[in-house]
Amino acid sequence: MGTAMGQRHGKVVVEIDTPPSGQAAGSAELPRSVAEPAGRADAFLNEYVRSCELPPNLIEAILYSLLGPGKRARPLLAWHSFAAVALPGRDPADCLPAAGACELIHAFSLVHDDLPGLDNDDLRRGRPTLHKKTSEAMAVLAGDCMLTLAFQLLTERVRDAGLAASLCRELALGTNGMIAGQVYDTLGGFTGDLSDSQKLQLIHRNKTGMLIRASCRMGAMCGGADRSALEAITRYAEDMGLMFQIVDDLLDVTQTTSHLGKKAGKDLDAGKLTYPGVLGVHESRDVVRRLHEDSVGTLRPFGARAEPLRQLAEYMAHRTR
Amino acid sequence: MGTAMGQRHGKVVVEIDTPPSGQAAGSAELPRSVAEPAGRADAFLNEYVRSCELPPNLIEAILYSLLGPGKRARPLLAWHSFAAVALPGRDPADCLPAAGACELIHAFSLVHDDLPGLDNDDLRRGRPTLHKKTSEAMAVLAGDCMLTLAFQLLTERVRDAGLAASLCRELALGTNGMIAGQVYDTLGGFTGDLSDSQKLQLIHRNKTGMLIRASCRMGAMCGGADRSALEAITRYAEDMGLMFQIVDDLLDVTQTTSHLGKKAGKDLDAGKLTYPGVLGVHESRDVVRRLHEDSVGTLRPFGARAEPLRQLAEYMAHRTR
Repeated sequence: MGTAMGQRHGKVVVEIDTPPSGQAAGSAELPRSVAEPAGRADAFLNEYVRSCELPPNLIEAILYSLLGPGKRARPLLAWHSFAAVALPGRDPADCLPAAGACELIHAFSLVHDDLPGLDNDDLRRGRPTLHKKTSEAMAVLAGDCMLTLAFQLLTERVRDAGLAASLCRELALGTNGMIAGQVYDTLGGFTGDLSDSQKLQLIHRNKTGMLIRASCRMGAMCGGADRSALEAITRYAEDMGLMFQIVDDLLDVTQTTSHLGKKAGKDLDAGKLTYPGVLGVHESRDVVRRLHEDSVGTLRPFGARAEPLRQLAEYMAHRTR
Repeated sequence: MGTAMGQRHGKVVVEIDTPPSGQAAGSAELPRSVAEPAGRADAFLNEYVRSCELPPNLIEAILYSLLGPGKRARPLLAWHSFAAVALPGRDPADCLPAAGACELIHAFSLVHDDLPGLDNDDLRRGRPTLHKKTSEAMAVLAGDCMLTLAFQLLTERVRDAGLAASLCRELALGTNGMIAGQVYDTLGGFTGDLSDSQKLQLIHRNKTGMLIRASCRMGAMCGGADRSALEAITRYAEDMGLMFQIVDDLLDVTQTTSHLGKKAGKDLDAGKLTYPGVLGVHESRDVVRRLHEDSVGTLRPFGARAEPLRQLAEYMAHRTR
């Protein structure tokens, strides 16, 4: 456990084989101080899940999916959004339930998306997907359980009941946004006469964007953000979410399966709408650059406390897997 | 919509072909006043789901599963548990979010249980299961969405944030109990050396029992139940939950597919542990009778206000589908 982004020696080095033009390759490194809370979120989730009264085979399946290799982007965004808004002296561990709940939702969504009836993937982050490792029935049920545990965690580990209810609402909106985006992406359901570019926006702002938005907002809410701080964090999160997904699309067409740890080129194979498909690779990279600039600009009012969020934006813009 | 238990002319008549010995056939009728809140829960859920910002094909899939024919046992238990404990003058509509959330969880669980990787059922309540009607992908995603909407509904429609957080916790425990029971039932995971009878208890108290328990407790919590009232309602609910499942098992071996509206005899085909399988049909019916008596005894302190809960117990003990 706790190998998120493989931090070991103070810096997390991420290979860059084709850096976007005008960007230094070195910018895809994440300082240890930024990546470290991922290990704390992992440890927190490990303890929490094991404390639940559930069959041992179910707990094992959940931990396999939850604590495997991964970026832990959502817990890190929650943690550092907390840090950007919280008054000095506040314990950042106060946002661990929110950070953990967002990772539970992310992990559940990967397990269900990998199922034979959906993306039918055998490989996830270089390991067998959960239904390959166990069974389809276990993958469905473990996903359902992780989704439910996210809400259970918030109600059991957030002391202030009013805050817990607000966090549950935020998480539900983020989760259903993600599900809506997945429906648009794979099953259609668009209303009105939308261009490919408009459809893309609708897919991506929901599918990846809404849970990243919830992660940042939930972290900020735990930190006691006032209205204007929460609005700034929300704008940052929306830019980050879109950027994250466009970079994902770019990696799918520019990287190899062995480098990504999951099947490359599958969006193209599936005939899916993607940014590089609609705008081209060059223009997509320009959009990433603009979103990166905007997201960093939004953080100005927070000064030095938002430095980790800036570094996360830098990393997200330049990651290669 | 709103055809739960087919109430139309003041009484809901349910066929009894093989009444348990010593019970009058007439006791499987549910007075209109007891069944009526099912229609209100349906109308509430219809309005709520349509108000959510979701793709129209997803909303359609959800409403197909949520408002199809069904007993609406959980909303009725929530509603009448509220009525048993609430002070006079309290509006029972206050428990509609809790009643609706429990039905959302029940409906999601049926959709996922019917999937090819789990029970692989083509028929549910006389209609095609959701994955047959739409696609496996839609059934997985619509189930996930209903599960999430249950929590979203509680946080959006329960005014008191402290109560909303308590209801979310109760619902999460009920849902994960149900999932744990399904894992025990279909995938094992028992620890220690349990007899078949002990395994059965563990399966049933979780699989059906925990969500019925949550339904009653959530209704009572909305009604402002004090500690002792909540404990009495909990005991009633636990008896009801077990009784409900034993009757389900009995129906599976004693009824036909066309009568049940779902495949009969499938527990036997699947080699599952069931009460009639372990105890025999006669002894299982004795357990139902004892649970029925106990559940009704627990309601004594509530007097006349618990009459609908008594009638529900009567109906549950004698239902034939």
